[in-house]
Amino acid sequence: MTSSAPLERLSLNQITVDQWTLPEVIEGCVRAGIATIAPWREPVAKVGLDAAARLIADAGLSVSSLCRGGFFPAVGESERRRADDDNRRAVDEAAALGTEVLVLVCGPPLGRDLAGARAQIAAGIERLAPYAAQHGVRLGIEPLHPMMIGERSAIVTLGEAVDLALRFDAGQVGVVVDAYHVWWDPALERELVRAAGRIVGFHVSDWLVPTLDLLQGRGMMGDGIIDLRRIRQLVEAAGYDGPIEVEVINRELWRLPGDELVALICQRFAAAV
Amino acid sequence: MTSSAPLERLSLNQITVDQWTLPEVIEGCVRAGIATIAPWREPVAKVGLDAAARLIADAGLSVSSLCRGGFFPAVGESERRRADDDNRRAVDEAAALGTEVLVLVCGPPLGRDLAGARAQIAAGIERLAPYAAQHGVRLGIEPLHPMMIGERSAIVTLGEAVDLALRFDAGQVGVVVDAYHVWWDPALERELVRAAGRIVGFHVSDWLVPTLDLLQGRGMMGDGIIDLRRIRQLVEAAGYDGPIEVEVINRELWRLPGDELVALICQRFAAAV
Repeated sequence: MTSSAPLERLSLNQITVDQWTLPEVIEGCVRAGIATIAPWREPVAKVGLDAAARLIADAGLSVSSLCRGGFFPAVGESERRRADDDNRRAVDEAAALGTEVLVLVCGPPLGRDLAGARAQIAAGIERLAPYAAQHGVRLGIEPLHPMMIGERSAIVTLGEAVDLALRFDAGQVGVVVDAYHVWWDPALERELVRAAGRIVGFHVSDWLVPTLDLLQGRGMMGDGIIDLRRIRQLVEAAGYDGPIEVEVINRELWRLPGDELVALICQRFAAAV
Repeated sequence: MTSSAPLERLSLNQITVDQWTLPEVIEGCVRAGIATIAPWREPVAKVGLDAAARLIADAGLSVSSLCRGGFFPAVGESERRRADDDNRRAVDEAAALGTEVLVLVCGPPLGRDLAGARAQIAAGIERLAPYAAQHGVRLGIEPLHPMMIGERSAIVTLGEAVDLALRFDAGQVGVVVDAYHVWWDPALERELVRAAGRIVGFHVSDWLVPTLDLLQGRGMMGDGIIDLRRIRQLVEAAGYDGPIEVEVINRELWRLPGDELVALICQRFAAAV
């Protein structure tokens, strides 16, 4: 039996505890001894960027990533410019919060033009990467599960994310490996080898059987059928030893008292990751 | 604008008109001028195999495939034997119905052992293929969408299905390309080239946005975002010019009067496929 990941590597992704505001997440992490968080932009905006950055710093927490930039495919020039502006703001926010990683959810195709969407995504990252580099932020391309292609991302395999990332400097663009999104892929092992040196984030949750909800039906680690420990080891073999974000999007879990959910997360992180 | 597929190639997959019994499907196809059907085993069993074969033959219909064998991963020897027995019966039924193709839905992993499931699937096909060949039936490995991995199939990419098929004689084992299951794959074009000479079936439906149901939320052709015409042309370029099965699994459509649904299918087949 291989040993579990040390709890020091646990980062709490904010959406996992969506019943909490950002200040509540920060306090909850401090109570539970969790040293790292991964906020989303909307709850940061609710508190205000400067206030959020101060609260996080005052609590002594690190920030593993900011979720999210992306959504590159756009109809027409003005929509494209709006997306670019928003992505530069996301970079600014990441820098202000003190994280080096902006997660990219690349956006769905417009209508039936999947190849066009993928080309727009590549072009969008190309426009954003220099700005991000100037601000000390790496872009983390996160491939999403193919069932999310219509609403979230035309980038649905790790291989494609790695192909994209390899067009850029390793210091500028990498990939985010979320076990939930990639575990099914028969090419996973091979693509993680190719991703060596490019992995800027690792996320965990579990695949429930049956899965009834495409967006909010992820499972707590240990409740599903993903061999999370094996994937963690493959990710580590590819050179990544940074924070492991727990990102469980599950509406049942959002009904639990936050502290109870956080305790369960810590327990399952030790047992299953 | 490329021309649409001729209606002579349309095969009606039975589950598309699940509001109908098999005799009703047969009569409905005759009324609509559809020459080919693809029955499922359960509705065939309800009528009785011999009676079903006779009804289909008397109506002058062809059978493009029988759905389905597979579900190879098994716990222990007796469960494995039961699955093998059932798969041989599926071959017998395909032969009795006069179709050369048995569709394989390969079965989900048992627990977290995805690699083990894939090995059991390969071994199961190896045991079944000679029996199928003796009965004049080709096995069609159908990769399913990765969202169905937990309940239906550990084979979730066309590439993996092609890899499996290539271990066998082209006359014995091929692949079934269902646009709904494979359209998202950035490797689709490449894998269809590799599949040349191995494609034993082509299925169409559409990917709805949003998709709310993992199993029964497929769309009528033209209602979603799959570029079906392009995929059909790629499939044809790979040498397949056989029946095109319309397999739309959608509970809303099951509420329509059968004849109305069949008319819509014919119209959309011409417009979108």
